[in-house]
Amino acid sequence: MNRFHLPKEVEIVEVGPRDGLQIESRFIPTEEKIKMTDDLSDCGFKAIQVTSVAHPKAVPQLADAEEVMAKIKRRPGTVYNVLVPNYRGAERAVNMNADEWELMLSVSDSHSISNANKTTKEALKEHEKVARLAQENGVIARGGMATALGCPFEGRMPIDKLFYVIEAYESMGIRYITVADTIGVADPKHVYETMVQVQEKFPDMKYNLHLHNTRGMALANIYAALQAGVTSFDTAIGGLGGCPYVPNATGNVATEDVVHMLELMGIETGLTFDQLIENASFAEQLVGHPLESAVYKAGHSNKLHDAPKKQVKQAD
Amino acid sequence: MNRFHLPKEVEIVEVGPRDGLQIESRFIPTEEKIKMTDDLSDCGFKAIQVTSVAHPKAVPQLADAEEVMAKIKRRPGTVYNVLVPNYRGAERAVNMNADEWELMLSVSDSHSISNANKTTKEALKEHEKVARLAQENGVIARGGMATALGCPFEGRMPIDKLFYVIEAYESMGIRYITVADTIGVADPKHVYETMVQVQEKFPDMKYNLHLHNTRGMALANIYAALQAGVTSFDTAIGGLGGCPYVPNATGNVATEDVVHMLELMGIETGLTFDQLIENASFAEQLVGHPLESAVYKAGHSNKLHDAPKKQVKQAD
Repeated sequence: MNRFHLPKEVEIVEVGPRDGLQIESRFIPTEEKIKMTDDLSDCGFKAIQVTSVAHPKAVPQLADAEEVMAKIKRRPGTVYNVLVPNYRGAERAVNMNADEWELMLSVSDSHSISNANKTTKEALKEHEKVARLAQENGVIARGGMATALGCPFEGRMPIDKLFYVIEAYESMGIRYITVADTIGVADPKHVYETMVQVQEKFPDMKYNLHLHNTRGMALANIYAALQAGVTSFDTAIGGLGGCPYVPNATGNVATEDVVHMLELMGIETGLTFDQLIENASFAEQLVGHPLESAVYKAGHSNKLHDAPKKQVKQAD
Repeated sequence: MNRFHLPKEVEIVEVGPRDGLQIESRFIPTEEKIKMTDDLSDCGFKAIQVTSVAHPKAVPQLADAEEVMAKIKRRPGTVYNVLVPNYRGAERAVNMNADEWELMLSVSDSHSISNANKTTKEALKEHEKVARLAQENGVIARGGMATALGCPFEGRMPIDKLFYVIEAYESMGIRYITVADTIGVADPKHVYETMVQVQEKFPDMKYNLHLHNTRGMALANIYAALQAGVTSFDTAIGGLGGCPYVPNATGNVATEDVVHMLELMGIETGLTFDQLIENASFAEQLVGHPLESAVYKAGHSNKLHDAPKKQVKQAD
């Protein structure tokens, strides 16, 4: 049978504590964030993005990054990652004992200007210093690429813009790239083609995909990315998160939706469905509004109901 | 580039008026159903499943099938389809002037017993008479296969059960099969493998796929089905519909979500996004509760926002 190759194993990076909580209107108490992250550590994630060192005025919801990073449990085998948008943030991150920093910038100039008031080129120049600081402190640096699969102001990004950013990251010694569909506009064909092209052009890089389910296509995009050879995905428990351009839209692709689909296809993640559902339930309590994960509402596909008995036919 | 073949064109069968409205707790007034169907006709669907001749005691929401079929506009180029679960229903359908009947049965015995109090084999025997009646009346008969991709009581169906039903349909002169994921449990690998196998075994059949988005995988499943060569899909405007086994779950895959994804990938449906959104909005008013379509909430991926201007840097 002509079936496309699918991997045996996939790595899930849980980003709920960072990308999920930073968009919530209320500040989640520090001790709740710590409990959330510790419970997620117990699930056995390969990596967790715990918080961000964005300026507290820009992202007040994560202003407690230092305290959270100081007090979480560190599970051996889990990589604890902090999002680092600029050099000032990196200086804060130095003392946080993170295993990894995710350097973040926007591939599109308009989004970069909107978010950070600098062009992509200016952001890359600053990230050279951030990458050096990471190296000096023995922290792995990952290269994040927001709006790589679509920008709210410019639409689709030409592949050359992705190449330009990846090349710059490569020259900084970075070997791990996150390609992000920040606003949830990518379709599976576009994801497939993009991921094939970046892998062909920069084969020494490891790639991770960050998807939002804003327009319902995130699982389709993951399926397409698996076919393109991508085996690492950012997900958020309960589908936490959202989009500043679409007030009521769904958020990050939900961890449990991804793990459920992968499990049905026989792809290992090392995570357990029921434990993820418990964590989604806690996340929902924490944010105080209903979460949009499909399997959180519908349950696992494998759960069977009691079969009916045939009735003796009535005369009619 | 090693990209998988995708079709240039896809046929969308709108099933909202039938599969969407039959699960609503309130009876939608007949004239509203007629307006809904007429508006959908104006969209230019290749086919619309208008109603069902299930026994009015079993499906009271569609007890007005005769009046709806008598009063809807017939757009040239649109196939008007009625769901026919049994011979008694077929006798009602004879006078409805439908272009097509969708014969319906469950591939799994337990679901067949639960829904119709007969085994799959007994249902097929009855459908022989239904297919004959269709032929005598110059109506095309389509062979529907509920639970083909998963049963709430038995789980996954062995492929031989699908072969058994398709072979029986074929012997009745039927040339068009609907494979249904009635409870939304299929994953893309399973869909791909199933659709490849049935097409290899019965290559003269035309196949249509009916998917529910209960566990968020419907668009991924459509992407997988496209790769398997399937080019016809049942969808429901606004994502109408639901699942009796999962009270709060999402319903049929939403017409506008499917058309949006296909459009991004350059696949023609003959349908217009904005017109579909208007129809989703009317459907939402009709049922009186929020619908779950992703793009109905989030808008089209191609809609751009005004780009920001870079600010002169402040001293800091």
